[in-house]
Amino acid sequence: MAPSEALSAVKNAARHEVDTPQSRAVRFGPEAPLRLDCGVDLWPLQIAYKTYGELNEDKSNAILICHALTGDQHAASENPVTGKPGWWEKAVGPGRPIDTDHFFVICSNVLGGCMGTTGPASLNSEKNRPFGLDFPVVTIRDMVRAQAKLIEHLGIDQLFSVIGGSMGGMQVLEWAVTYPEKVFSAVPIAAAAKHSAQNIAFDEVGRQAIMADPDWQGGRYQDAGTVPSKGLAVARMAAHITYLSEAALQRKFGRELQDREARTFTFDADFQIESYLRYQGSTFVERFDPNSYLYITRAMDYFDLAAEHGTLSAAFAGTKTRFCVMSFTSDWLFPTSGSRDIVHALNAAAANVSFVEIESDKGHDAFLLDEPEFFATLRGFLAGCSRARGLKV
Amino acid sequence: MAPSEALSAVKNAARHEVDTPQSRAVRFGPEAPLRLDCGVDLWPLQIAYKTYGELNEDKSNAILICHALTGDQHAASENPVTGKPGWWEKAVGPGRPIDTDHFFVICSNVLGGCMGTTGPASLNSEKNRPFGLDFPVVTIRDMVRAQAKLIEHLGIDQLFSVIGGSMGGMQVLEWAVTYPEKVFSAVPIAAAAKHSAQNIAFDEVGRQAIMADPDWQGGRYQDAGTVPSKGLAVARMAAHITYLSEAALQRKFGRELQDREARTFTFDADFQIESYLRYQGSTFVERFDPNSYLYITRAMDYFDLAAEHGTLSAAFAGTKTRFCVMSFTSDWLFPTSGSRDIVHALNAAAANVSFVEIESDKGHDAFLLDEPEFFATLRGFLAGCSRARGLKV
Repeated sequence: MAPSEALSAVKNAARHEVDTPQSRAVRFGPEAPLRLDCGVDLWPLQIAYKTYGELNEDKSNAILICHALTGDQHAASENPVTGKPGWWEKAVGPGRPIDTDHFFVICSNVLGGCMGTTGPASLNSEKNRPFGLDFPVVTIRDMVRAQAKLIEHLGIDQLFSVIGGSMGGMQVLEWAVTYPEKVFSAVPIAAAAKHSAQNIAFDEVGRQAIMADPDWQGGRYQDAGTVPSKGLAVARMAAHITYLSEAALQRKFGRELQDREARTFTFDADFQIESYLRYQGSTFVERFDPNSYLYITRAMDYFDLAAEHGTLSAAFAGTKTRFCVMSFTSDWLFPTSGSRDIVHALNAAAANVSFVEIESDKGHDAFLLDEPEFFATLRGFLAGCSRARGLKV
Repeated sequence: MAPSEALSAVKNAARHEVDTPQSRAVRFGPEAPLRLDCGVDLWPLQIAYKTYGELNEDKSNAILICHALTGDQHAASENPVTGKPGWWEKAVGPGRPIDTDHFFVICSNVLGGCMGTTGPASLNSEKNRPFGLDFPVVTIRDMVRAQAKLIEHLGIDQLFSVIGGSMGGMQVLEWAVTYPEKVFSAVPIAAAAKHSAQNIAFDEVGRQAIMADPDWQGGRYQDAGTVPSKGLAVARMAAHITYLSEAALQRKFGRELQDREARTFTFDADFQIESYLRYQGSTFVERFDPNSYLYITRAMDYFDLAAEHGTLSAAFAGTKTRFCVMSFTSDWLFPTSGSRDIVHALNAAAANVSFVEIESDKGHDAFLLDEPEFFATLRGFLAGCSRARGLKV
């Protein structure tokens, strides 16, 4: 297959996944609508999910993994769209820090996503066309409420742990606050209790890039048979810079030229960093829905746990959940200061919390990588919680 | 005038300024072409410039101010396009740190710009249409060579000082290296001797945003009667985030809502930061040429003073110029580390150099603002150099 044919195969697979995912899915009808923060009752609701490992007899070993902005349910197995390994295979699997020989791991596509959970690309059966902007604006809490329906469906009363990085970490915090009795332990990684002005700004740039593309067609591109690929690629490129650190970019690319001896005095991708960014943009548009990108970034913008409860420590009042908060030194998208705010609030609520700032020059994306200190901390925390919970590890 | 009419008036003024600037301009014909780094001999070449203050009898009090990416020659007087004060009026004028009661200040629009110096929006007389992408890709050194022609035209053998921030600081460094005997003192502010991978990445995002806009028309939008406004606005929005610091964004905007009591659950500009960014985008497209944005960012990408001379200290070998290097603590676009690299190279070349890192939470844009320690340093350095040069101050 030529590269462009391979990409189109990916795109077709991605479109197929929206309504008919290759993972398991559960559907909720009008008898069990999802009440959203915006006031809408959403149904039908489909939640696509993957599980790894076995649920033990007393259903006490379940871990929910919450994915980030562009992640999906395929945390620890091949992605059916891209054919690539799951996005967190380094962390999740037999013998891995989140050990599927001991834990039953659940990962679901978020509400508003495009991998099988209901979102703007899903068929709006009322109108017999994709939702587009008719899809209601959802929040992190809405995502968590949807996950809670899945967990209930699976017959699990309490999750042994809820774990996630970036937007996944926001969901972890929301879980601990909204369903404290259902969360034995919680691991928010490279996250914050609210989205900062700078992060809202970067999200807005991404959205404006998508909506500026005439192929976006006011959100009705599926009906029009177009794809706002260029706008989505620009959004991805801008966001991708924020996932890395300046040091990592310097180390990986510096000012190295791409397959050439000298500058060309053109606007070609002379530098490796340009070529890399263009590649990130072009592959992303094959697998991700532009409207989903709008909705999920909006959910992050709206996230402010303290605003929902007066103060952040009030949000955690009386919690019995054991927390392990982690950040990375070179992460400038979700800097350590945001994790410290969470820890201070948990301390003020007299919660059981440990906090580790991991030394890494890999930026925000470090949470997706095999950082030894990070994995050791995660493994150790889960071992300690297992003992406290009476699980055999 | 309604706001949209006012903006269109600005746009028309901007178009007019490209070939027929309201400032002074000097033209060079085929008898004095500008040899560019890409090998092209450029002519006719027009350089638009402003001066402030009076040149003294022995022509020893001239200061050249070099502007940044989106600046222009109107440093210290009303901008004829926007009607706003000059971009550096706080720093330049009678009694100001760069005191026009004592100094003769020159500021010219850079090569590749759109305010009267020859650039991609200028008329290509050979083809009787704007250059567009037929304009050669220029470098920081080309910009400086053009300025040197202007300085020669003004009959000035040696500049008392060359001063500039950001890309202006790159030009300052290039002046000191290319014309060491013509530069008595040099003040590179919030600059670096090379563009970093992260900065090239942000530039590339901006260029891709512009070129993704179908109204860009392969760079021939003037012929087509279109303007890639949406693409240019996205480029400006992304870049604008990099000009500020996270702390400044948090202090100015935080998560404050814009003229509303609650989130709207839409993609409107709910947050003040969104509204602010959109405004930055929309006003910028009225005054700036999209192709100029491509060319000038490319010149910055290509800047690497050490690469031209083997090492950075070799570039400065034997220099007699007095340097004052300045950076700002919260500037993450041109962080202090880049200024330190310059200072180390100058020290290795046994140059006369002072270095000040200014405490500020205002990010890269601090060099445009009235930061007392910054202005005091600038004033003091120029006073010291005046004594050394035998100027009365």
